[in-house]
Amino acid sequence: MTALEIALDVMGGDAAPRATIDGALACVRHPEPANDASGSQAHIAPERIRLVGDAEQIEALLAERGGNPGFTIQHASQVVEMGDAPAAALRKKPDSSIAGCVKAVKSGAAGALVSMGNTGACVGAATLGLGTLEGVRRPGIAVTLALAGTPVTLLDMGANIAPKPEHLAQYAAMGGVYMRACLNVEEPRVGLLNVGEEPGKGTDVLKEAHGLLSSSNLNFVGNVEGGDVFANVCDVVVTDGFTGNVVLKLLEHFAGFMMGLVTKELAATGTSFGHDSLKNIHRAIDYSSYGGALLLGVNGIVVIGHGRSDSKAVANAIALAGRALDARVNALIEAGLAPRA
Amino acid sequence: MTALEIALDVMGGDAAPRATIDGALACVRHPEPANDASGSQAHIAPERIRLVGDAEQIEALLAERGGNPGFTIQHASQVVEMGDAPAAALRKKPDSSIAGCVKAVKSGAAGALVSMGNTGACVGAATLGLGTLEGVRRPGIAVTLALAGTPVTLLDMGANIAPKPEHLAQYAAMGGVYMRACLNVEEPRVGLLNVGEEPGKGTDVLKEAHGLLSSSNLNFVGNVEGGDVFANVCDVVVTDGFTGNVVLKLLEHFAGFMMGLVTKELAATGTSFGHDSLKNIHRAIDYSSYGGALLLGVNGIVVIGHGRSDSKAVANAIALAGRALDARVNALIEAGLAPRA
Repeated sequence: MTALEIALDVMGGDAAPRATIDGALACVRHPEPANDASGSQAHIAPERIRLVGDAEQIEALLAERGGNPGFTIQHASQVVEMGDAPAAALRKKPDSSIAGCVKAVKSGAAGALVSMGNTGACVGAATLGLGTLEGVRRPGIAVTLALAGTPVTLLDMGANIAPKPEHLAQYAAMGGVYMRACLNVEEPRVGLLNVGEEPGKGTDVLKEAHGLLSSSNLNFVGNVEGGDVFANVCDVVVTDGFTGNVVLKLLEHFAGFMMGLVTKELAATGTSFGHDSLKNIHRAIDYSSYGGALLLGVNGIVVIGHGRSDSKAVANAIALAGRALDARVNALIEAGLAPRA
Repeated sequence: MTALEIALDVMGGDAAPRATIDGALACVRHPEPANDASGSQAHIAPERIRLVGDAEQIEALLAERGGNPGFTIQHASQVVEMGDAPAAALRKKPDSSIAGCVKAVKSGAAGALVSMGNTGACVGAATLGLGTLEGVRRPGIAVTLALAGTPVTLLDMGANIAPKPEHLAQYAAMGGVYMRACLNVEEPRVGLLNVGEEPGKGTDVLKEAHGLLSSSNLNFVGNVEGGDVFANVCDVVVTDGFTGNVVLKLLEHFAGFMMGLVTKELAATGTSFGHDSLKNIHRAIDYSSYGGALLLGVNGIVVIGHGRSDSKAVANAIALAGRALDARVNALIEAGLAPRA
């Protein structure tokens, strides 16, 4: 029996604890379908949410907002700050809210954790604290972008900057399970990010990964290039964590940069975007609508949101954790990676 | 005495030979400052331009356009097509226009070559045919983006997908020479593309490169992240050719993707961009205004334009070759890399 609680790191993120508390409240107070590109339900029963952080602050904020609708509160006396060096912070702050979330999952009280805090600390705490799933060599960070209306999941986005070919093949398998189980993509097409389409392209690691993927039972479409990420040629893009991290940060900033350019040009001609237009564009380029990044391969569902997350993004992150739990993504990953008889 | 001629691969590119011939004509017919972000002169004397390709086609096109203003014409009977596998194409087509350009530089008739054709074939032909500059270990492809109005040069964009630390350090030096000599940046700030700012971040190769750059006489600002490319924190961004290639293709396609989104949203509200606005945005995100990519480190100036180049982009590429020749970039690179006494 999988634990169904979701542990929320209330203290993590630039706007914490307000944005995290409001996100949790949004999940339980608005049972209509979430207005996100996935079309999924954001509603989560309050008893499934465990708020981990400074109990006094949490209770005060909930009181301000009309009371506790039924959340479990788990006190944590410390906070890992965004600027803290991850390893040192985890060592020096054993009672941090992120460590508390990991403990809740490890003990079986919760099946998932959600944090908008220090990404490195979250990945480190979850990987060390929870261990990997049966058969998984290295966890990977998966991010789903809603570009062009079609979700595409990229991994690894930075957990493993120098992966071996087998790690990349496992990322493909895990990304495929996630797309099928949580985003209803029946036969996810898997592409390997490379500098050209031919199988002989790229580094030795990529050539070997290409061979592993070609002989796997995945729907492998071969190498894809940088521009193909937006071309709907595959549903899962597999890459090393170095390239993935650079690409993700580049996209985030480039999108903002482009919008700045466009807004400036519009202003120069006396025009401006309507609120709905801005929202549509923002949704297409932002991954908050999918709730953040999933650390796939660890023994528990781990959702890592952006530090800048607002309450809407927090609600989506909690909803994503709920979907992944309910779809039994981790059991499916273990089954998918098990040696075939 | 450096040869001052520029050999133009007339047959290279999607719109060749029309776009290439028109680009050469634009260079000699419009002596006013080029309307590009670098503010440089696009004017080149016709006797400095050597058109390499099918002589009959070249003469017919020039005749259509009012005659040959003084270009040298060098016949080449073959063409490497965009889809050809580079190595095989160079072997099977020894009299291709790109091979002819390389021969012109190798013989000393020209000091630079410009091609909008098959990038792999161009890099291969130039690297093998011209050899590297004294002291250069591996050539690198440098691309200058005009983002946010400030030029930033990224290299390597795909010549060397698995560089050693010394290669990265040399890219930094070569990129710095180029920014100083051709774009008037006095003390170019050099950043190393990485997954975090701390010196200990990234792969072993990057850690070692960080050490080499820290002890160099370059203006090294340390590691930079994906988003910093647009943040004006450095003038030269050094990366391996794998990441560079992915990033460049991603940016090209993402810019088009974003513009599509924006245009669609504007249309939905009955608005549209004026021609000037589109041009301004396009210029900021496009590297054609800087004339394309420079293959730095080979024994000759090599400018590789985009296959989609129009005559304006061809003219800018020729102008870039002229600037690099006149600024004696290669002599400065050799001097910069020479062991200090």
